Formats: sequence, C-alpha cells, structure tokens
Amino acid sequence: MPTKFAVLGSGGWGTAIAALLAQNSEHSVKLWSAHPENAAQLNAARENTRLLPGIKLPDSLQITDNPADAVADADCWVSAIPTAYLRQALAPFASFRTIDAPVVSLTKGLEIATFRRPSEIIRETLKTENIAVLSGPSHAEEVARGMPTSLVVAAHDGGLASWVQHRFVTDRFRVYTNGDLVGVELAGALKNVIGIAAGVCDGLGFGDNAKAALLTRGLVEMTRFGVAHGAEPATFTGLAGTGDLITTCFSPHGRNRRVGYRLGRGESLADVLAGPQVAEGVLTSKSVSERASRSGIEAPIMTGVYEVLHNGKPPLAAVQDLMTRSPKHERV
Amino acid sequence: MPTKFAVLGSGGWGTAIAALLAQNSEHSVKLWSAHPENAAQLNAARENTRLLPGIKLPDSLQITDNPADAVADADCWVSAIPTAYLRQALAPFASFRTIDAPVVSLTKGLEIATFRRPSEIIRETLKTENIAVLSGPSHAEEVARGMPTSLVVAAHDGGLASWVQHRFVTDRFRVYTNGDLVGVELAGALKNVIGIAAGVCDGLGFGDNAKAALLTRGLVEMTRFGVAHGAEPATFTGLAGTGDLITTCFSPHGRNRRVGYRLGRGESLADVLAGPQVAEGVLTSKSVSERASRSGIEAPIMTGVYEVLHNGKPPLAAVQDLMTRSPKHERV
Repeated sequence: MPTKFAVLGSGGWGTAIAALLAQNSEHSVKLWSAHPENAAQLNAARENTRLLPGIKLPDSLQITDNPADAVADADCWVSAIPTAYLRQALAPFASFRTIDAPVVSLTKGLEIATFRRPSEIIRETLKTENIAVLSGPSHAEEVARGMPTSLVVAAHDGGLASWVQHRFVTDRFRVYTNGDLVGVELAGALKNVIGIAAGVCDGLGFGDNAKAALLTRGLVEMTRFGVAHGAEPATFTGLAGTGDLITTCFSPHGRNRRVGYRLGRGESLADVLAGPQVAEGVLTSKSVSERASRSGIEAPIMTGVYEVLHNGKPPLAAVQDLMTRSPKHERV
Repeated sequence: MPTKFAVLGSGGWGTAIAALLAQNSEHSVKLWSAHPENAAQLNAARENTRLLPGIKLPDSLQITDNPADAVADADCWVSAIPTAYLRQALAPFASFRTIDAPVVSLTKGLEIATFRRPSEIIRETLKTENIAVLSGPSHAEEVARGMPTSLVVAAHDGGLASWVQHRFVTDRFRVYTNGDLVGVELAGALKNVIGIAAGVCDGLGFGDNAKAALLTRGLVEMTRFGVAHGAEPATFTGLAGTGDLITTCFSPHGRNRRVGYRLGRGESLADVLAGPQVAEGVLTSKSVSERASRSGIEAPIMTGVYEVLHNGKPPLAAVQDLMTRSPKHERV
C-alpha cells in the first residue's frame, strides 16, 4: 500500500514516526519543521541531535520547512504538533487541502481555554472530518530504536482506522483499531494529571504498593471523567488508557512525573514551574478539576493534584486526605 | 471494634498483617507458625529476621506453634498459608471451629491438581461459607514499614466484607470492599503468569513501550479468562487486577518476574527452575493455558509463557509471534 505521507512537526515523536514510516520502502515521507533552522539541522546531520541523539534518519526521508512542499501530493497527513501551538501552526495548511486526505493526529493534551481535543482543533482548522488519532504507550526514542511498541488508532469511521492501521504497522510496531476517538484523546490528556500524582508519590519516598494503588484509582477517575464526556469505559482499560498511564507514571524521564517528583521532594512550586515549558498535566489539572467539581464527578486524586499545584496544599497532606477518606466500596 | 485475631502462617505477608492488626491496641492478635523453630525464633528476636529484617514486632503480638492455642476464642481467622500447603496445613484446624468465625484469606494462587481457588480449599477444609479474601498490591515489607497501601476485601456476603474492612483499615492501610470474590482470587493467580512475561520483556532488554503494552494486553487476557470462569470484568480494572499486576511486573524482587527475566537473559530453563521453591506462575501458566485452549479463550501472552516454560520455545520467538499476529481491533 504505497502511500505519500506528510508529517507535520519535527519534535521527538514526529521525527520518530516519520522515520518509522520512511523505513518502509513502499512509502514516501516528508517531514515538515516549523523552524527553518531545525529543518536545516536535520538535513545537515540526518539526525535529530537534540531529541533523538544517535539515531540516523532514513536516507529516503525528506525534510522541509515549506508547508506547501510538505503536503504536496500527500495521501495522508500526520499532525505531530503540541497542543499549545496546534491551532496556530495548522492555520497556514488549510489552503493546501486540495484533496480531503486523512489526518492522523499524534497530539496528546487539551486546549485549555476552549477544552478542545486535538482532533477538534484539526477539524476546525483544516475543515475535515477525515481524522484518526494514534495513541498509547510510546516513548519516541524506543520507537526510533526499533523496540517493540503497541498502539491504538481511533477514528469515528472504522474504515479509516483500518486504513491507517495497515499503513503504519510493522513487525516491531503493532497497531490495534479502536472506535472511540473521544476516549482515546481524553485518556491521553488525563493521564498526565495522574502522572504528576505518581511523581509526588515517588518524591515522598512511598513504595510500589502506594504507586500501584494510585495508578489503579487514578484510572478509575480518568474513566469516570471520560465517560461523563462521551467516552467508552473500555478505552481506559486499553493501550491509550492503562498502557499509556503506566509509561507516564514509571518512566523516569516524563515531564509530568518529574514535576510531581520535585514537589514531593519538597521543592517550592515556583521553582518547579519555572522554565520555558510547562508540563501538560499542570494546565490540564486545573480545567479537569474545575469541570469535575462542577459536574459532581468524584475525582479525589486529580483534585488533590490541582490543590497541590494551584492552591499550595502540601503533598503529604494531600496523600493523607486520600488515605483517610471514609471507607468505600470499590466502584471501578 | 475490639477483635481477637488468629493469623495462621508466619511468612512475610502473614507476619506483616499480624503486626498491622496488633498495632491497633483494641485488637488482640495471635500469630501461628507451622514450624516450632520459626515460632521460637520470632519470640526470641521479636523480628522475622529472614523475611522482614529490621522490623520490630509489636509487643502485644503473641506467637505460637500450637493450633488450638492460636485460634482459641478468636473472632476472626486470617489464613496466610501458601496455596501448595494450604489444604494440609488447615486440616488440623477443622476440629477447632467451635464458632463459625469469619476466615480472611490472604493466599494468592490456584491448587494446580484441582484448579481450586484458596477460598474453595478453605471452604472444603474448614466447612464454612464465612470467607473473605484480602488482595491487591501489597509488598509485605512496605506494609510492615507503614507505607501507604490500598487493598480490596471481597466476600459473597457484603456484610462480611464491610465487617472485615472496618477491622483492618488504618490511616496507612486503606481497604475497599468488593463483591466479586471469584474475580479477586482469579486475578491474584493469573497476574503471576503475566509477571513472568514482564520479566521476559525486561530480560530481553525491551523498553517501557513494550512492557506497558504487555501489561495492558495481559490484563485483557486475565479478564477474558476470569469472566469465562464466573468473575466480574470490573474486578480486573481494580486493585486486585490492575493494581496487583503493576507491582508484580515492576518490583525487581518478585519471584515470577525474576523467572522470566532470567529466561529473557538467555539462562536455561533447567537452571531457572532449579531450587526449592517454584514461582507460583510457572505452575499456573500450565493449567491456565490448557484451560484457555480447551475453552477457546484467546490468551496469546499466557500461552506464550506456557510455551517458553514448558515446551522450550525461545523467548524472542514468542515475542515475535505476539507482534506479528494479524492486525486486530482493540477488544478490551
């Protein structure tokens, strides 16, 4: 199934997916970078030295900073732009939609001001319904190194999900289809909030028992919140839910876990949040916690993260409050 | 709610639970050891030096090797005997059932010859229906050190589950009730098989992506198998399922994960399985894989573990077969 791909966004995940697709000699792949200097560096070094050091890009992978060139003749667009820049970065591409090529979104998060999911931003910006979402446990570096990875591709249209599945799959990259696009996107955003809580747990020096319970109960909250917003519960027990949550909470490198870890170790909120890039879960916790409280969704862990991050509650007090709630039945 | 407990079995988990209960000054607790020399050691050192080194036992905890003394006047029996010895060790206690005191089972596993769950062995041996099961992510050492832990207690009778909940709970030990005793017990046995697979994954040097996917898809298989044997699917997304599976697959000390790790590193099966104690999952994988195949339950991971352990299949080939199955929809 030879396919021409345009991958928009040359961060770690965009680069890794572009390289994965380009390794299949049937495909032709162009990777678009928003920054001319990045495109030049990638072309010169044939390596993403900052985000995927030591991994050589396939010779066939073309790199460009020109939007029109990137998507010319493309059968499939792949969007790998972070949520915060997605609307603005996609805008110039709208005029190049000469055919309604499928768009595969790799973005995880929520647009905080509007509570829009990435696929909704794509729909509004590119005026298309032809959208699929690829998600699940996927450190870019592991994919780039050919380590085994299993993901889901979700779309409202089962035919589209299957179309994407057959073009992305390799013997090291397994792709399952899933019909619940809303659930897959919400899981990808909400897991970052639980990732912060997992970091707090590690920072406080708690053990495996506490962390496993936190993930389990966190997943229950993610599911409740998701179902109240139109998701299928089963999605949260799948790769985009349980799977992605596990990597987020256990990888020592995750930005969200790291924020929680530093707070748990006793660093001040101001120090932890200083720096150019705010971890996605910090923003998500605010809007999710407010929505949960407004809609009466029981979400004590996500609310606890919000209280620690935005109201200065001491992490240990937040844990203590979680452990001493009234005895409950295990509603999952 | 002052309660007299008899804890039967002085392994790590039995000792930790006895100590936890004895820390509540309302309770009185006797810990029974099957081995007089162990009971003498525990009494002399006031410490389980082999299994919980460095943790002092509460002064009020009584230790005995006498069955009649252990359960005399007890309001609640706690069974902490490994599956393989459970039937034989409980037999002498049957004649001491003067009142039908509740029995809380801490045992995880399956009796391989009969496919009986621990609560079924207790029912047959002690002739009682008054049985609850306590399960979930719980390294004994962390509980003994007062680190936060959350578990479930399951019973057919909701009143009994609640009775146990209120007697075990502390501000560091949170207990949820659950009505699905069958599911809680099956989850506790099946997770050991997935734990071996997680060890193989680590031993082969795979990363977070592969391991998170393995846990997620392993949980799907556990759920399918459990539901076919009378369990509720929701139990597998709870603390006895997802929660316990996470600790089993991530703790570096787990015996099941360790077996898989050594196989993944290339050690021979004979070397890995040598030694006095066989990891629970090695036996479970055989009977579970045979039952799954007989009943047409799709369980490629558990079957892969069986093939590696019992039919000499190379671990890498087993992983390759998993990754290259025909493309699927994510049924969870």
